[in-house]
Amino acid sequence: MGARDRSSAGCSRRRDRRFAGDAPRAGCSPGRGGTACHREVFDLRIWVYATPADLPADPPRVGAAVAIDVLRATSTIAQALWAGARAVMPYLEPEEARRAAAAATATGSSGKPDSSGSAGLPGSPGAGPHLPPLLAGERGGVQIPGFDLGNSPREMTPERVRGREIYVTTTNGTRAILRAAALGPVYLAALVNRAAVVDRLAALGADVAVVCAGGQGAFSLEDIVGAGALVDGLAARGIGVPGNDLALAAVALFRHWEGRLAELFRQTDHGRRLLELGLAADLDWCARLDVLPVAPCYREGRITAA
Amino acid sequence: MGARDRSSAGCSRRRDRRFAGDAPRAGCSPGRGGTACHREVFDLRIWVYATPADLPADPPRVGAAVAIDVLRATSTIAQALWAGARAVMPYLEPEEARRAAAAATATGSSGKPDSSGSAGLPGSPGAGPHLPPLLAGERGGVQIPGFDLGNSPREMTPERVRGREIYVTTTNGTRAILRAAALGPVYLAALVNRAAVVDRLAALGADVAVVCAGGQGAFSLEDIVGAGALVDGLAARGIGVPGNDLALAAVALFRHWEGRLAELFRQTDHGRRLLELGLAADLDWCARLDVLPVAPCYREGRITAA
Repeated sequence: MGARDRSSAGCSRRRDRRFAGDAPRAGCSPGRGGTACHREVFDLRIWVYATPADLPADPPRVGAAVAIDVLRATSTIAQALWAGARAVMPYLEPEEARRAAAAATATGSSGKPDSSGSAGLPGSPGAGPHLPPLLAGERGGVQIPGFDLGNSPREMTPERVRGREIYVTTTNGTRAILRAAALGPVYLAALVNRAAVVDRLAALGADVAVVCAGGQGAFSLEDIVGAGALVDGLAARGIGVPGNDLALAAVALFRHWEGRLAELFRQTDHGRRLLELGLAADLDWCARLDVLPVAPCYREGRITAA
Repeated sequence: MGARDRSSAGCSRRRDRRFAGDAPRAGCSPGRGGTACHREVFDLRIWVYATPADLPADPPRVGAAVAIDVLRATSTIAQALWAGARAVMPYLEPEEARRAAAAATATGSSGKPDSSGSAGLPGSPGAGPHLPPLLAGERGGVQIPGFDLGNSPREMTPERVRGREIYVTTTNGTRAILRAAALGPVYLAALVNRAAVVDRLAALGADVAVVCAGGQGAFSLEDIVGAGALVDGLAARGIGVPGNDLALAAVALFRHWEGRLAELFRQTDHGRRLLELGLAADLDWCARLDVLPVAPCYREGRITAA
């Protein structure tokens, strides 16, 4: 049982399970806000997966994917780009990131004058001198020895990252990004940049698969709540239907904890582990909603501000 | 990240994430209702897994496991025992069930006078003539050819099953039961018998792992809501702390849909598939809460009323 309907990217005609209709909700658009599509009201479907391993062998065909690692990779990468980093290159393993950064340094390909299209952000890299790449990442929540930065969004200040390329590897987040790339271009979403990613998905108007990082292969509630925030943001525009049960659950979970997100993070497995490492400030940083108007997008090995 | 604390079965001292404290709730016991344990207030921890495959390689050590397949295996088996079936034997594959039933018929080991301890139920098997075993199960939601019964709880009437042994195989449910058996004795829970299983777990007073059947390896929302109902029932007695994020999510999801369970089942992947098969009456049957005072328990190959 549990066979899932799949369709090509684009128009879906299923209107029976609208998120917006799940419960009356302040702030939701009373209208549908859709545009005509094949004589039916336009809508997009959203699938949510708790970990990269949960993607089925025959995944839904979508127009875009979203990777979510609220604590902390996608929050941190959004902040790095917002602070003016030129691009972020994700790798599975520290050694891969080291080699790639070394190669970029040797060829002088890093830190060249801006051609990434991210001009206009407050920390816009702009033109400038060649700057060496930065290495960033964690294992067990702790900065990797020899790396320039860890995985805290609070480290990604304009002073540290403006104009730089950052080679990054994290325990769960970079895996989710790279796995999601098999589905299409990958937007990186967190709570802090939820609205910016919703804008992109709404403009794209195609079905979407949300791949949560999870923690060591297990369901991470803060990621699912992040996925629910995305779905809720689309529902507020009157668009989006759940593609699977976890999408339906995610929006209910977001609505349950909305307004208490920092409190939630103090109860989740991953959040509690970060607390033990003395990173309460990171929890509070990542629990803010819609504060960074940047939608990072991974294509062809690079994450840039879309 | 996401490393999980594990402890041996029994006493847990973590009181920081009580389900009952998540939100004020009518019907919750204002007291803790615990008993002394090693000078600490007694409490038990609950882990929830969305599918058998989500059980970690090094699972938590627990005093009991619970298998949940709300639509429909655990609902149906609870009803079969309530209607007087002597025992239910779960198998992964139809051919295994056929062979076991044939062997039982040949040796006359099925349908002997009651020694299962289930006397006292309304459909109690009692003493009686030897009766041949029954074969029950589904694939794709449809009764397996040549089997006596499918997987509908409405088939499990006293007239059909009283005094009988039932050899059963279902797509997801029997797999969850057999996988959970590696952890300890397995209670079978559904919404219909939630309170009876809560009674057993509260009496046992040990940590518990809840293994949901899911659908074809994916998260099934009706099973997670069933797990949440169990957790909520324990919380109403002032006991239970979440062992993992999915336990925390499950109780929120149950509370979100409590009172609208039949409506929820019409939105889930598995529920919609059953609707397409014309089984709306099964959805309504399985969406009832606390109506069967029976707690099936699987040990040593047999499920009997605990």
